[in-house]
Amino acid sequence: MARAINFNAGPAALPLEALERAQRELLDFEGTGMSIMEHSHRGKAYEGVHNQAIALVRELLAVPDDYDVLLLQGGASAQFAMVPMNLLSPPASADYVLTGAWSKKAYKEALTIGAARVAGTTEQDGKFARVPSASELKLDPQAAYAHITTNNTIFGTQWHEFPDTGAVPLVADMSSDILWRSIDVSRFGLIYAGAQKNLGPSGVTLVIVRKALVAAGRKDIPTVFQYRTHAENDSLYNTPPTFGIYLLRNVLDVVKNGGGMAALEQRNRDKAALLYAAIDERADFYRCPVERGSRSVMNVVFTLPTAELEAKFLAEAQKRNMVGLKGHRSVGGIRASIYNAVPREWVEALVDFMRKFEA
Amino acid sequence: MARAINFNAGPAALPLEALERAQRELLDFEGTGMSIMEHSHRGKAYEGVHNQAIALVRELLAVPDDYDVLLLQGGASAQFAMVPMNLLSPPASADYVLTGAWSKKAYKEALTIGAARVAGTTEQDGKFARVPSASELKLDPQAAYAHITTNNTIFGTQWHEFPDTGAVPLVADMSSDILWRSIDVSRFGLIYAGAQKNLGPSGVTLVIVRKALVAAGRKDIPTVFQYRTHAENDSLYNTPPTFGIYLLRNVLDVVKNGGGMAALEQRNRDKAALLYAAIDERADFYRCPVERGSRSVMNVVFTLPTAELEAKFLAEAQKRNMVGLKGHRSVGGIRASIYNAVPREWVEALVDFMRKFEA
Repeated sequence: MARAINFNAGPAALPLEALERAQRELLDFEGTGMSIMEHSHRGKAYEGVHNQAIALVRELLAVPDDYDVLLLQGGASAQFAMVPMNLLSPPASADYVLTGAWSKKAYKEALTIGAARVAGTTEQDGKFARVPSASELKLDPQAAYAHITTNNTIFGTQWHEFPDTGAVPLVADMSSDILWRSIDVSRFGLIYAGAQKNLGPSGVTLVIVRKALVAAGRKDIPTVFQYRTHAENDSLYNTPPTFGIYLLRNVLDVVKNGGGMAALEQRNRDKAALLYAAIDERADFYRCPVERGSRSVMNVVFTLPTAELEAKFLAEAQKRNMVGLKGHRSVGGIRASIYNAVPREWVEALVDFMRKFEA
Repeated sequence: MARAINFNAGPAALPLEALERAQRELLDFEGTGMSIMEHSHRGKAYEGVHNQAIALVRELLAVPDDYDVLLLQGGASAQFAMVPMNLLSPPASADYVLTGAWSKKAYKEALTIGAARVAGTTEQDGKFARVPSASELKLDPQAAYAHITTNNTIFGTQWHEFPDTGAVPLVADMSSDILWRSIDVSRFGLIYAGAQKNLGPSGVTLVIVRKALVAAGRKDIPTVFQYRTHAENDSLYNTPPTFGIYLLRNVLDVVKNGGGMAALEQRNRDKAALLYAAIDERADFYRCPVERGSRSVMNVVFTLPTAELEAKFLAEAQKRNMVGLKGHRSVGGIRASIYNAVPREWVEALVDFMRKFEA
């Protein structure tokens, strides 16, 4: 079977090279006669992988020394709770900017823990066609933190410039936005991301957090949910998801050997430009509901004139070995997720198909 | 390289057949042209695996219909917190029986959440040489639940008969005790287990919980940490650790095809009997610090006359391709973990080596 042209939103396509490496050494990791899955998390073989993974995150994202890099479990959904559990103490309140389903979920979870307020929203008729401009935000200068979701997989919007929250720590869910370009980590208090878009398989969660926030975090919550517990133990407080971290290491190695972050960003911008151009040049047939300034480089959403045509489009795409193009069940339409591991050729194949289908 | 003779305490040896299957289809799951890791957790391919994994747990452990089977993240350490978060409401208190390092950790974590008391302990001079008898327990008939750790990986003790807690739900950490024999699930309110001993790779946590306890669980805690959230969503509330669950499915398939639970229990008891006999027949050289009635079938611990001899033993074992025999860093000595995936031949090789080493 030929490799599928995979536009899944996450779990998503992984670099073939990272998978092939895993396959080669699945039964025998580096001549040890054991799978990496069978190694103790306290042994040299796994610890080497663990430390490499963290070092590669630090290197590729230029993480400053005053930040901890943690590898946790539970995905972004667990972080929706852990962020306020650690950082929100009465009487303080936290600010949430609503730009889609995931930021609303994060906000709702914060309300189960403490005080939170909406510092801005672009919701209109249940949909989000853009992210807010800086002038639209009503930030609380006393907030414990301000939370944004930097890329919205469902609505296909993305923050291209991050808001300036002054002395208030900026907390960002970057699950579908991490590591496709360089960012200035020092502008954030805390960044979290489920691995299953750009980093690796599901089951690993990356947290990058300023050490001062870790130190100031609440101590009256369960030990296992305190960031400090994992920071003090190099993410080895309890047994980590060793295979997931191993595969994340493989993926980061591919990024590094593929020319680094600048080249990666250029490839991603080129892919997105190609796809948006294909939509815009047939604007009476394909329609992107997202305002131009908010269009996501990772998740490209568009609609066709009717639901019937969309169903036909998906069926024809499937025949061409293209999968994962169905929009999220909550909004419908078409969505092509074009993360790091989606090569330009796949986007070209999609664009070619779009032209033929419209004709 | 020959396959290592792996006595790791966890992550531990996995059935070779389960790994080989994973290796074969790592790049192409069932002709889909994608790794199972690249499939959406909402797609048919992964959902099939997910449902099979849960069905196999139900079948192999004969889980009654009034119990939910959940596949979560965070390991036993996260359950140390989630159990009291869900089940412990003021003014109730929870009972903890202390039989080793893990039960002490569970108890300490409960204290960060609510009221908990020690209902029994076998600690003596910082060590645990046995589990308590029923008559030693001082159970609170009003307790929210009573918690035990059924097998203690570090001290090599195991509950061979479970205490009768009457109307108080019995909660058991079975991380290193799960699925090596049949149990009567109906005697427990909740069972939890990190996967990385008998079930699969690290990063997956099995929870088997009576539906009435799920329904009565607290609602004033974060959504993602409520059992009901995962029960209502078939463990697909958020993205599950798909590859870990896939491998767990592979492992359970091996158990099922290997003759089922009765045959498995017999193999495990035979392996343990062989190893304990080798210790006891040279009692002046090898010494098992665990009382006979509490000896673990999963983790066999023993000491040699001096620390120097133990170091030499480990070095010689390494030359014979045996790994993972070093006792836990907190207690020293030797430990052989002989979970399901450790074949009898490996135990025979160890016994053979022990005889030669002593001579």
